[in-house]
Amino acid sequence: MIHAAVYGYGNLGRAACRHLQAAEDFQLLGVVSHRAAGLQGQPDAPRFCTPQQLWQDPAIFGHIDVLLNCGGSARDLPKTTPALAAHFCVVDSFDTHAAIPAHFAAVETAARAAGTLCVICAGWDPGLFSLTRLLGNAFLPGAQPSTFWGPGVSQGHSDALRRLPGVADARQYTVPQPEALQAARAGRSQPAAGCHRRVCYIVPTPDADRKALAETVRSLPNYFAGYETDIHFVSAEELAAEHSRLPHGGCVVATGGAPASGEASQRLELQLSLASNPDFTAGVLVAAARAAARLAQSGARGCRTMLDIPPALYSPLDAGSQRARFL
Amino acid sequence: MIHAAVYGYGNLGRAACRHLQAAEDFQLLGVVSHRAAGLQGQPDAPRFCTPQQLWQDPAIFGHIDVLLNCGGSARDLPKTTPALAAHFCVVDSFDTHAAIPAHFAAVETAARAAGTLCVICAGWDPGLFSLTRLLGNAFLPGAQPSTFWGPGVSQGHSDALRRLPGVADARQYTVPQPEALQAARAGRSQPAAGCHRRVCYIVPTPDADRKALAETVRSLPNYFAGYETDIHFVSAEELAAEHSRLPHGGCVVATGGAPASGEASQRLELQLSLASNPDFTAGVLVAAARAAARLAQSGARGCRTMLDIPPALYSPLDAGSQRARFL
Repeated sequence: MIHAAVYGYGNLGRAACRHLQAAEDFQLLGVVSHRAAGLQGQPDAPRFCTPQQLWQDPAIFGHIDVLLNCGGSARDLPKTTPALAAHFCVVDSFDTHAAIPAHFAAVETAARAAGTLCVICAGWDPGLFSLTRLLGNAFLPGAQPSTFWGPGVSQGHSDALRRLPGVADARQYTVPQPEALQAARAGRSQPAAGCHRRVCYIVPTPDADRKALAETVRSLPNYFAGYETDIHFVSAEELAAEHSRLPHGGCVVATGGAPASGEASQRLELQLSLASNPDFTAGVLVAAARAAARLAQSGARGCRTMLDIPPALYSPLDAGSQRARFL
Repeated sequence: MIHAAVYGYGNLGRAACRHLQAAEDFQLLGVVSHRAAGLQGQPDAPRFCTPQQLWQDPAIFGHIDVLLNCGGSARDLPKTTPALAAHFCVVDSFDTHAAIPAHFAAVETAARAAGTLCVICAGWDPGLFSLTRLLGNAFLPGAQPSTFWGPGVSQGHSDALRRLPGVADARQYTVPQPEALQAARAGRSQPAAGCHRRVCYIVPTPDADRKALAETVRSLPNYFAGYETDIHFVSAEELAAEHSRLPHGGCVVATGGAPASGEASQRLELQLSLASNPDFTAGVLVAAARAAARLAQSGARGCRTMLDIPPALYSPLDAGSQRARFL
């Protein structure tokens, strides 16, 4: 039995609790949340405490084999994962691609110093998609895997819209361009901005200048500039009724040539279609927590990503059953 | 630089030689083939020797870090991989699913006794598809992944046809049934025989009774009985012109429900589309050889499958470059 705790109780934390309670080899000891006082009695977890209480007494829930850090990726994890690594075997789903090397270095330093084992970036991208990009490149030598996201809700882009003056609420869908997907399957690479369309549903504030707002959105650097961007202004009621779910998905396409022929004739493609993005991310995070607990148990120390983890460690089954059922 | 040798020089062995010679971190020392005498001077390899010569002098090519056993899967590998494991770090692509536990046990015993490290069943199924079945089941708890093969040439079924009296030559295509694929994507499992159609192109001998032959094919146990089977009688010329290539592929579909909803609403699917089946298998085998050489170098001993191998070991890139490019 692996004794686990969850740090953070948003969409991801709640989904992780459900997965942990459904898994036969995990026992969920407790959940750490700023809102602990109001959460006691929730069926998701036997106990809640605040971050302050955990820092004062890291053994407040008893011995924790692995702690699932489900805090906000961009703002919280760069601080909390290294800090928690001083006391616990931690897994997180940090997903700001450009900041991964710095996050890796900080967690590696903290985990080595404390003699703990951490797994970062466990989710679908980074995570399962990272694994697929590596395998595509290794098995089809020379292949430069392409990644497509969506159709689905990008929470980062939705947040970027909501931060703009004149926006009361918003939801952004990322949609792969069919021609770009076709080109990737045929082995032709594409500029990143040509691969996706961005579809925005915006609830404007009453005083908003819609035309100026649309211009601001279309020219927002790093988010919309250079992309084909559709903008729809909707009411708060329509946004709630039509766009409240968090579907997502995407695919990784690796196309390689047979060395003999030089033709782009071999294709490996992973597709993901998710009704609930946080639910799938939590499923990967819990499997990574299982792997992390086993690695820590076997004496491993420092920071790992899914590129480093033997796949067998994700599965609750023993090696013989895995070979019989999956090999 | 990893020093490699190839044992067996059929479709798979020749493809492995091409991949090894294209890889910057491998040096191909030589090839072992019964036909060595007639092969000297082939551009694929610097040296050839017979199996007898290798057994007499395992150092005939110098020190071999890893030996890629490219012999016939069903007949040769169960004997040669355990025997070669006494002297070498060996990788193979053994693919007779039902016989894997026995093969694993034999190679494990031989490798432990000799202090070598072997990787078996490295290919696409078993291999990449096995990995995907394990990940699908671990990340989507409760998911029972379904596997579809084709459209593509099944060499085992083609061989079964060729062994029948009245058959001069034959080629069998395995084709997934669209309704079964749709059902798997929706999370409904299907009986194995309902998932594929079998399409046979048969060159009959001049004296063959075509009607009786078709009946024999359709009732052949383990191969065609219970399957929807199309039979086309063709000339030797047509078979050579239209059916001489070895395309293959398939997909693994894992569909799971969000624990909250119970709906089958999360789907992970790996698709493979291969103009050349042996070329892709050789690509995986060479990546597995890289992993095996690194595992052996780090002191690992015994038998492994792709379920046990940290993905990073397949890639020629160092860990930092892998994180930057793939994570």
